[in-house]
Amino acid sequence: MEHKKSLILDAADLDFCLYDWLDVESLSGYERFSEHNRETFEGLIDLAREVAEEYFAPHNRKGDLQEPRLVDDKVELIPEVKKALTAFAEAGFLGATMDAEYGGFQVPTVVYRAAFMWFQAANVGTVSYALLTTAAANLIREHASAELAAKFLPPMLDGRWTGTMNLSEPGIGSALGDLTTSAVRAADGTYRVRGDKMWISAGDHELSENIVHLVLARTGGPGVKGLSLFIVPKWLGEAGALTDRNDVSLVGVNHKMGYRGTVNTALSYGSGAFPVGGEPGAVGYLIGEEGRGLHYMFLMMNEARLGVGASAVALGTTGFLHAREYARERIQGKELGAKDPAAPAVPIIRHPDVRRMLMLAKAYAQGGTALILYAGKLLDESEAETDAAKSASLALLLDVLTPIAKSWSSQWGLAANDIAIQVLGGSGYVRDFPVEQFYRDNRLNPIHEGTHGIQALDLLGRKVLLDGGSGLADLLGRMRATLDRVGASEPELARLVGERVARIEGVTRTLWEDGESTTALANAAHYLEAVGDTVVAWLFLDQLGALGGVAPALAAEKRATARFFITHVLPRVDASFDLLGSGDRQLVDLDEALI
Amino acid sequence: MEHKKSLILDAADLDFCLYDWLDVESLSGYERFSEHNRETFEGLIDLAREVAEEYFAPHNRKGDLQEPRLVDDKVELIPEVKKALTAFAEAGFLGATMDAEYGGFQVPTVVYRAAFMWFQAANVGTVSYALLTTAAANLIREHASAELAAKFLPPMLDGRWTGTMNLSEPGIGSALGDLTTSAVRAADGTYRVRGDKMWISAGDHELSENIVHLVLARTGGPGVKGLSLFIVPKWLGEAGALTDRNDVSLVGVNHKMGYRGTVNTALSYGSGAFPVGGEPGAVGYLIGEEGRGLHYMFLMMNEARLGVGASAVALGTTGFLHAREYARERIQGKELGAKDPAAPAVPIIRHPDVRRMLMLAKAYAQGGTALILYAGKLLDESEAETDAAKSASLALLLDVLTPIAKSWSSQWGLAANDIAIQVLGGSGYVRDFPVEQFYRDNRLNPIHEGTHGIQALDLLGRKVLLDGGSGLADLLGRMRATLDRVGASEPELARLVGERVARIEGVTRTLWEDGESTTALANAAHYLEAVGDTVVAWLFLDQLGALGGVAPALAAEKRATARFFITHVLPRVDASFDLLGSGDRQLVDLDEALI
Repeated sequence: MEHKKSLILDAADLDFCLYDWLDVESLSGYERFSEHNRETFEGLIDLAREVAEEYFAPHNRKGDLQEPRLVDDKVELIPEVKKALTAFAEAGFLGATMDAEYGGFQVPTVVYRAAFMWFQAANVGTVSYALLTTAAANLIREHASAELAAKFLPPMLDGRWTGTMNLSEPGIGSALGDLTTSAVRAADGTYRVRGDKMWISAGDHELSENIVHLVLARTGGPGVKGLSLFIVPKWLGEAGALTDRNDVSLVGVNHKMGYRGTVNTALSYGSGAFPVGGEPGAVGYLIGEEGRGLHYMFLMMNEARLGVGASAVALGTTGFLHAREYARERIQGKELGAKDPAAPAVPIIRHPDVRRMLMLAKAYAQGGTALILYAGKLLDESEAETDAAKSASLALLLDVLTPIAKSWSSQWGLAANDIAIQVLGGSGYVRDFPVEQFYRDNRLNPIHEGTHGIQALDLLGRKVLLDGGSGLADLLGRMRATLDRVGASEPELARLVGERVARIEGVTRTLWEDGESTTALANAAHYLEAVGDTVVAWLFLDQLGALGGVAPALAAEKRATARFFITHVLPRVDASFDLLGSGDRQLVDLDEALI
Repeated sequence: MEHKKSLILDAADLDFCLYDWLDVESLSGYERFSEHNRETFEGLIDLAREVAEEYFAPHNRKGDLQEPRLVDDKVELIPEVKKALTAFAEAGFLGATMDAEYGGFQVPTVVYRAAFMWFQAANVGTVSYALLTTAAANLIREHASAELAAKFLPPMLDGRWTGTMNLSEPGIGSALGDLTTSAVRAADGTYRVRGDKMWISAGDHELSENIVHLVLARTGGPGVKGLSLFIVPKWLGEAGALTDRNDVSLVGVNHKMGYRGTVNTALSYGSGAFPVGGEPGAVGYLIGEEGRGLHYMFLMMNEARLGVGASAVALGTTGFLHAREYARERIQGKELGAKDPAAPAVPIIRHPDVRRMLMLAKAYAQGGTALILYAGKLLDESEAETDAAKSASLALLLDVLTPIAKSWSSQWGLAANDIAIQVLGGSGYVRDFPVEQFYRDNRLNPIHEGTHGIQALDLLGRKVLLDGGSGLADLLGRMRATLDRVGASEPELARLVGERVARIEGVTRTLWEDGESTTALANAAHYLEAVGDTVVAWLFLDQLGALGGVAPALAAEKRATARFFITHVLPRVDASFDLLGSGDRQLVDLDEALI
């Protein structure tokens, strides 16, 4: 399919990934996706692009410059946000992946992800309101009672109500086991929630009739096992007949480096600002069982982490596309080696160092896209698979890939934005061009939904050990299968990747052979980064095995990017593998006073 | 000397570098610096710190939030800027390095650099006005006639007049040979300058009675040899008796990602907005000879490049210090390996990955400080040395180190700021904390005064070849001397550094052995980065040889940082050296359509 040019995303690469490489059409073999085919997928993605271009991209800078502000205790946003979200809802995106019984379209995640990336690249600040709503709705559908689902889902899926996630508290971000917000069961079976929450995106605004907060609060003892999850709506009552304010109040608005279109708030629950009668606190509805709150949240969070990775890749990609466009048009400097001062100036894309930057940004954009979509398809397969053992095995592989998809994409998607600034030079540093905003927006991604360091501990300290290491074994097996398949046609690239695949196996064994976790985890970030690069190198190699039916120009482009990544980027992993293999404990043993 | 704690700079590390390691007191052996001693040096640096703390640091964020704006065609700045610059001038900093005959104090550059870093770290946006003034004054002193110097220097050095550098034009930044602004000699011996200039920092404001623009303009044919350098003041007349506006007008103000306190302007020369009578154009006074403009500018630019490196290191250092402070105070998460959910939370500096980030930021801060001060002392030595051959040899070594000092410091000083954001997590991403501003301010440094890519070409394509490669040979010789000196006490670290020193020599030879510059320069950025890391590793090792008289705690700290850099960071160079050694031409040969 021919696409018209875009600086938002690379439509041709998305098509290649979805149809030529991942063969997402095959998902319609599962009962859940049986109504779908390539035509419905393409229709959804095209529609996403249209809505993103018309309603989201045009106010991306305006949302940055005119950030949300408090006026008479209300959050005021630019009017374009509401219009864009209405268009998003009317196009059916809020319920796209949802079960048909709730009015959804059961679109595979992998396809929805690709569609949603158009919005993330066009205007991440605005589309976050929708993202948070669908994430909250998915969690309610998955874990809340039918009664709660019937009450909350319809107005969330048609865009009248929006959603939020309330985990962090002032002073407590990564260490959720220390949360102090409490919930007490009231006589009517609902709960009363009291406490302060921090960093709550979309926590208050006038975009929707109601805001459905999902709140982690303590019902039991210390640690994560005392945490339960609640629905705490801003307004009480039924959709269309909201009567009383719940005792949730806006304490303040945070002013961020980027991502400014999404209002970020501090909220207070049960402060008494809006007393609800009876016990003090905000009225909360328990989701599932007490003590399982973090468990439910984490199921959602795994999806959210892939969403963060997708956001980072989308922003990195649009940064790359803008930089490439600029480099093709901007005339500056002579050809390398030209001595004649009267020689004509050339587009800067002719300069090797500009090419280096562009190829690096492109490899990050396309590598991240491959990683996110591969993980998305795994999610679909593991959820749609009816054979329990197969489903569990797919889920274990996805468990291993999730911290990588989140962190690799965040780290290098951001790097692509940094590169875009550098390619534009002085122009990249001014607000007349969008690339500096892309950078600032993307800078959040290595922080939220589990920092880079948290993902590293999750990967090396937990995910590669699950079920006797079967997820990692599956990953290594898939890597070796690719090496076998593509090795004959790309012997040199396969050799370079194969050497590092072997190192993943060797280093993981070495790190865990004595079971001593402090030393094993001392350099976990190096593990995350080196495995991440190797995974992406493998995916590039795997894509080279899927070029058979692809247009020659696109195939040549993919070959160039894959080769660049594997020969110019991948070798950096060796220093990390060496360090990991040495069992270096410097960082653990270091006297704190010497830092 | 004991210092009270600061989050602006690491005073103890500066002291160590200046007095224990570089022995800057020895500079007083040169005639030029014979009036100075440790006491005068410490006095100057202490005064810098005091003025920076009192007049610069307090409005750093305000200058970011309330950026310069146009009001009735005038640039309006917050009033704190003028007060700070007045304090700076009154303390004598504008003329500190200047010859005594111009009222200066002949302070060595290396000491002034250390003093100036206090201002750069405290408020780079405000101190830039002073930096540009001293840079312009230095250039006038060095190259302009005695008559021009007598007219312009006194009011510049007492702070009544400020200065600027006008190189770039709209569409022309890095390729100065293509500049189009013209200058024509008038009957009275002055020139008339006409053209548009872009990205001019401090190009217009109400801070001073007059603004002294140094303007590159074309008097001859194409290329850099047709360029001459002019003084073009905003107001004509003598200090204290300024009469007429010169034909320089403000066209617009650029809005930047950071560095917002420094107004950045587009200027037009000779537009007719302020006609001066006679020939059209702005009145300009030729500096030196026609056709030598870029030569004069480059002499100044080498110093400016070290200044950019210093700015990047200063910002990186203050970022690190803020992050370390936060990590010591912020309680979050259990000790690695703790299983008990009731175990106490610990300061995040206990977590290995936070330590990794802090040590990396610290190594960048201290490594950059070492590099900048080492280069600063070389500059002093080469200028003060009366033996012409020795002086030339020192200058050649400095030539090699200048692009490294500029680029390594900019790349990794900025990385230290990125790390600081990550250490603070969500707090790092909001404007309540200063670290996100440090990042945005520092992001300019890899761009201006020659981008990273330009520095790479300068190093590999020019500096290592000058005078038959004698500058590089001198550098390698100094490195080997350190290996010999420190090898016995630090055999392992010396071995790790020594391996990479050998690679610099081998790879440089390989790259240039057939003299074919396109292949040699295809991966110049890798060369710049790998050599830069090796140089910094060498300086750390060299510092270990200077710990004899140092307090044990400080010595232990320096050993930890040096060891971390050499074992955890330096090994990344191998992948770059391998790539360079392979003669890879991918980026040169790549079909543009495949990028």
